[in-house]
Amino acid sequence: MPTNHSKTDVLIIGAGPAGLMCATWLSRCGIPFRIIDKRSNEIFTGQADGLQCRSLEIFQSFSESSFDFATLNQSWKMANHMIEMCFWSPNGNGQLERNSRVADTIPGISRFTQSVIHQGNIEKWFVDSIDYFSNGQVKIERPLLPISINVNEKGTKDDQYPVEVKVVKLSSEESKPEQFGSEKVANGLYRQFDGDQDKSYKEKSTTTKEDEEEEEEEDCEIIHTKYVVGCDGAHSWVRKQLDIDMEGEQTDFVWGVLDMVPITNFPDIRNRCAIHSKDSGSVMVIPRENDLVRFYIQLKEVERDPATKTDNKQFNGNVDDTKAKTKGRIDRSKITPELILKQAQKIFEPYTLEMTDLSWYTGYQIGQRVSPQFSKFNNRVFIAGDACHTHSPKAGQGMNVSMQDTYNLGFKLALVCKGLAKPEILSTYESERLKVARDLIAFDHKLSRLFSGKPMIPNSDILDGVDMDEFHQVYLEGNKFASGTIVDYQNSLLINKSGDGGDTNDDDDDDDDNDCLIMNKLATKIPIGRRLYSVKMISQADGKPIHIADRLSSDGRFRVLVFPGDIKYNPEQLQTLHSFQDLLDESNFFLKKFTPINAFQDSVIDIITIHNNNRHDVEIFDFPDFTHPLDYKHRCDYWKLYSGKGETYHEGTFNMYEDYGIDGKRGVILVIRPDSHVAKVVPFSIDGLKQVDEYFNKFMISQTNNVLPSKPIDYDDSKRFIQPRLAV
Amino acid sequence: MPTNHSKTDVLIIGAGPAGLMCATWLSRCGIPFRIIDKRSNEIFTGQADGLQCRSLEIFQSFSESSFDFATLNQSWKMANHMIEMCFWSPNGNGQLERNSRVADTIPGISRFTQSVIHQGNIEKWFVDSIDYFSNGQVKIERPLLPISINVNEKGTKDDQYPVEVKVVKLSSEESKPEQFGSEKVANGLYRQFDGDQDKSYKEKSTTTKEDEEEEEEEDCEIIHTKYVVGCDGAHSWVRKQLDIDMEGEQTDFVWGVLDMVPITNFPDIRNRCAIHSKDSGSVMVIPRENDLVRFYIQLKEVERDPATKTDNKQFNGNVDDTKAKTKGRIDRSKITPELILKQAQKIFEPYTLEMTDLSWYTGYQIGQRVSPQFSKFNNRVFIAGDACHTHSPKAGQGMNVSMQDTYNLGFKLALVCKGLAKPEILSTYESERLKVARDLIAFDHKLSRLFSGKPMIPNSDILDGVDMDEFHQVYLEGNKFASGTIVDYQNSLLINKSGDGGDTNDDDDDDDDNDCLIMNKLATKIPIGRRLYSVKMISQADGKPIHIADRLSSDGRFRVLVFPGDIKYNPEQLQTLHSFQDLLDESNFFLKKFTPINAFQDSVIDIITIHNNNRHDVEIFDFPDFTHPLDYKHRCDYWKLYSGKGETYHEGTFNMYEDYGIDGKRGVILVIRPDSHVAKVVPFSIDGLKQVDEYFNKFMISQTNNVLPSKPIDYDDSKRFIQPRLAV
Repeated sequence: MPTNHSKTDVLIIGAGPAGLMCATWLSRCGIPFRIIDKRSNEIFTGQADGLQCRSLEIFQSFSESSFDFATLNQSWKMANHMIEMCFWSPNGNGQLERNSRVADTIPGISRFTQSVIHQGNIEKWFVDSIDYFSNGQVKIERPLLPISINVNEKGTKDDQYPVEVKVVKLSSEESKPEQFGSEKVANGLYRQFDGDQDKSYKEKSTTTKEDEEEEEEEDCEIIHTKYVVGCDGAHSWVRKQLDIDMEGEQTDFVWGVLDMVPITNFPDIRNRCAIHSKDSGSVMVIPRENDLVRFYIQLKEVERDPATKTDNKQFNGNVDDTKAKTKGRIDRSKITPELILKQAQKIFEPYTLEMTDLSWYTGYQIGQRVSPQFSKFNNRVFIAGDACHTHSPKAGQGMNVSMQDTYNLGFKLALVCKGLAKPEILSTYESERLKVARDLIAFDHKLSRLFSGKPMIPNSDILDGVDMDEFHQVYLEGNKFASGTIVDYQNSLLINKSGDGGDTNDDDDDDDDNDCLIMNKLATKIPIGRRLYSVKMISQADGKPIHIADRLSSDGRFRVLVFPGDIKYNPEQLQTLHSFQDLLDESNFFLKKFTPINAFQDSVIDIITIHNNNRHDVEIFDFPDFTHPLDYKHRCDYWKLYSGKGETYHEGTFNMYEDYGIDGKRGVILVIRPDSHVAKVVPFSIDGLKQVDEYFNKFMISQTNNVLPSKPIDYDDSKRFIQPRLAV
Repeated sequence: MPTNHSKTDVLIIGAGPAGLMCATWLSRCGIPFRIIDKRSNEIFTGQADGLQCRSLEIFQSFSESSFDFATLNQSWKMANHMIEMCFWSPNGNGQLERNSRVADTIPGISRFTQSVIHQGNIEKWFVDSIDYFSNGQVKIERPLLPISINVNEKGTKDDQYPVEVKVVKLSSEESKPEQFGSEKVANGLYRQFDGDQDKSYKEKSTTTKEDEEEEEEEDCEIIHTKYVVGCDGAHSWVRKQLDIDMEGEQTDFVWGVLDMVPITNFPDIRNRCAIHSKDSGSVMVIPRENDLVRFYIQLKEVERDPATKTDNKQFNGNVDDTKAKTKGRIDRSKITPELILKQAQKIFEPYTLEMTDLSWYTGYQIGQRVSPQFSKFNNRVFIAGDACHTHSPKAGQGMNVSMQDTYNLGFKLALVCKGLAKPEILSTYESERLKVARDLIAFDHKLSRLFSGKPMIPNSDILDGVDMDEFHQVYLEGNKFASGTIVDYQNSLLINKSGDGGDTNDDDDDDDDNDCLIMNKLATKIPIGRRLYSVKMISQADGKPIHIADRLSSDGRFRVLVFPGDIKYNPEQLQTLHSFQDLLDESNFFLKKFTPINAFQDSVIDIITIHNNNRHDVEIFDFPDFTHPLDYKHRCDYWKLYSGKGETYHEGTFNMYEDYGIDGKRGVILVIRPDSHVAKVVPFSIDGLKQVDEYFNKFMISQTNNVLPSKPIDYDDSKRFIQPRLAV
């Protein structure tokens, strides 16, 4: 039977959160791609459940008026939104006591608060989204196992698809990893340690040349592709093919996890709690949906497998290293819910704790590892998510950082595959995300150590333990990091931190990350490189208050935000704004130059104008045409002009210029990447607009000869007034 | 072929918004019922699109954490939320000018703003909800035509199902009314005037005795039922069977409706506008989803059918009557989109107006009619919605008031069918809703006259027209009425406006309805009889801010809201609260007495306690058991205890006692009906709680001998922590 050959632009290997986020981007942008997974449908590998603010912002950004990121809102209601975090530890008498309370999400950091929802729901939203955006064309293909990968590194011009991946269809029996423990209660005890699972897969993937012919008699396919994204988890096959090691360590702390409805007289059971007991270890309490509560419990007595006792590879992060050596790996088959509960009961004393409605449990040893490289073969093959960083789950970061990896990569792949941007932009994936992963591992390392350690008892003789004040401090610092909203990308093709507006380095005391924030003095509250913090503005056409983030949808487009200031009392500002029209009409200026000639003018770069006048003081037709352009049917697009200032009837008073530190008279121009990160800040002037042109010229590809093959407009007319998709 | 016989508790005839709302209630409460419609699936009879605040509140109240009233949130995003209303009229030179702007929804009247969404979406939400609540058991049966109705008025005890309705299955051909106009564009020109449609139905429904046998050879069924609800529209068959006339009039004003994307230089096209031209009539502009705009346009030149020229029946409302006689009915087949557009262009002058993407049109003559009776046969047969009130669509009221009719009736039917309440409560349907219908007709009458009339031109010789200031005034007054939030039900079995707390009659100047508001001095901002205005409170268990309305779900339960005041600095208040426990434990006191003995204790009456302390100053276990009851598995219900006061991390500061005018020390007890209307206000005291007992004793039926047939708990355990449904 001959091997099948096929072509696609991108092959995503692994359909967990990282792979699904990548797939969502690609389907949103209309890129041909496939996504495969070796597991059969019925298996949920993960039970991650924390959604950080930034992940929620990203989900929201995929919403459209006609599509709400599947049932995001529905599930948002179902999710448990944690409000408060309580710290409990022994008082001077060694008695457990509520030590302090803080907001679980730092107020003001985002319009969302972090929440808890079952990973299965999140994966379902993604599947629905991919189905919607691809018009039902793309389904996850499973169980499909990759067995070899070859890259034609020389990449002649003729070889548009230089990567070859051979895949084989598994039977549903082969695609189920072995599971320990009770069959009645779901648990996570199958997804573990390098080498001790995936036996049948391993044998396949290490097949030697000689076996190849035999294999070809199976259901084999060779996929020729432009790019491969490996999102295949902690034991990543793709990473192994790239010959990239994980660097980091295994610790000696062993944790159990229980999801159940507790019966207790502990008063904070519906709050997030970190409880340090005097002698019995620690527990993290995470209240969930449907009155379930998740407990992360430090286990004292678990049998180890001495054969697995090894030195760790040296941790490579930038924190002090405990250099712990393990006593060997835990014997996972010995972990039972009763064992975990028993330990929890000791920690909770003198409060009572009983269990009902047990729905899931697992056990693990904390380890922190990160890959030194996120791509190889001249940016033809990437790894993302757990494939390049693993750590403890207590910071609630794993799924979030994984999704954010491919949220970073996806739009870059889309722009390159469309022929809109140069492949060089793909290098920014590793430079931007490797730093995030390292920061994450360092944070997790620090937090785990403090959380797992014995507490110091104030005013007692037990003074060599973990200082609770230090723990709170690290937690609070980490909380900002953990929100995902302060990720700061450095200078690159896509981020220009310097400009002629005069930059300020603001080492904000409130910001506990190590980097200096770079602000342009024209927008003193907008750190360049971070995602644009969302505030509300008012639609000029209909007075509707709207979060600017909701005008910055994840649809693949760059945005140029024009802030002309107060145009009523500064007529020269209005004059400048009108003079922009001539530039924008030029075929060699960025707007026309980088947009296929027969696509909607805002298909690639969307220009939004936000003035600093009360909406009632100006009229829409005072403004130049590009603020309310007509389409081929002469229909007007009313959704490009906003007021940043004024009272609203139902939502209070807005002042966007103040929120962003923009001078209300002079204005500013911002360039925003498709992932909402601030790329460049320039003055509101002809010269400033020319700097925007320069920005795009560095990495975009001229479309002045590109006539799209189909009818002038490739959209269903009924969808016209929805955000247009990235031009096909 | 023998006729089939079947039984059901309630038969709903007509599956428009009124019928569907009734069905939603009944399925939510687990009542056996059927809903039939004579139209086949494909026909949308209505194109109503305005959703008032109260309707949105009601939709929200059917949401649960696991069910979001189908895709309410999704469609809420899709809907156009109108923010501003602009009034345009001729200035002194006769030139069209923006005269003023107001908020489209009065600020502070509700947490929702009125919106515009296609009726098809609303009907879909209902269908999804009925499917969800009935676990897929109930579907709309169509096309099914009722042909006779008989009521055994004597109603012997043996006759549990005293109403017989004979129905016949139609072919899909028979169930499609004739349609005028183009076949390419959807229009509303089939749904008209008494008698000029429904020809085939008419013949059937007037079948004489002699034909009966013949009929029985068709697909015939006799449904034996306890109650019938006729929601079968303006030409209601049920109303005719009850021999109830409509009282009211036909006016001479003819209107056309266009849904299209306009091309115009008129600056307010995305706002709601009322435009009075000097000589060419008026237009109402309603911006919609997807850049569509609806135009209601007064038509000057439409051919009349002289044969239909008649005197009107005298209008029976309480407003001055223009006593207009019609020139005859319009010839609907002559109405075209082009004709309507031409008239609109004249009104818009000097602004241009062109049409693209026409999606719907219709034409109608304004008429206002109301039935003097809403039920017959000792409250065995009811009519609701258009079946008992019709009027012009411009106030955006029709669908809303119709849904609110059955929102009023549905929970009463459910309580009676369950055997929980006496049938006497059904009388309150007519007494409560007939007044609303009459107020609606009066409002519509006044607004239509002012909107249809020629404007007075200020500082000119045209001074005999409609005074624009008066028009604005009526509009603004009407806006409050039109929100649906100030509906005020009078004293009845279910509403006790007097109490021994000392009542105040507050004829609030802001309230332009004719009634005095009745407030108890213990809660000076809560008008008894109106729906409880929703404000936010804080969950004691987890600090979550929540709208009280979201704890008053439409699930058939009454609520007793206990406000004990400040219990930390007033220990006697806490003592009183603890003393309630003994009463509530008594088998002859309302909580136990009216709840089936093996049902969840909160299945019929749900007690919620809201204290006036900062949440951090008290602990959940300071409060008596009924504020955090245990279930049969000893799981704790944490969602009955709230703080009304304090700062939140993300949503500002709350002060519920102040919002409601409740004394922060003395407290109060409120009784809230299943439809969220305030039923009774009593002091926070043992005596007050006994008054609550008296309230329920008047109409509830003792359940002290009622053991539910199934296992102790009839809920799926996984649904336990969702709001329990009304006990089965």
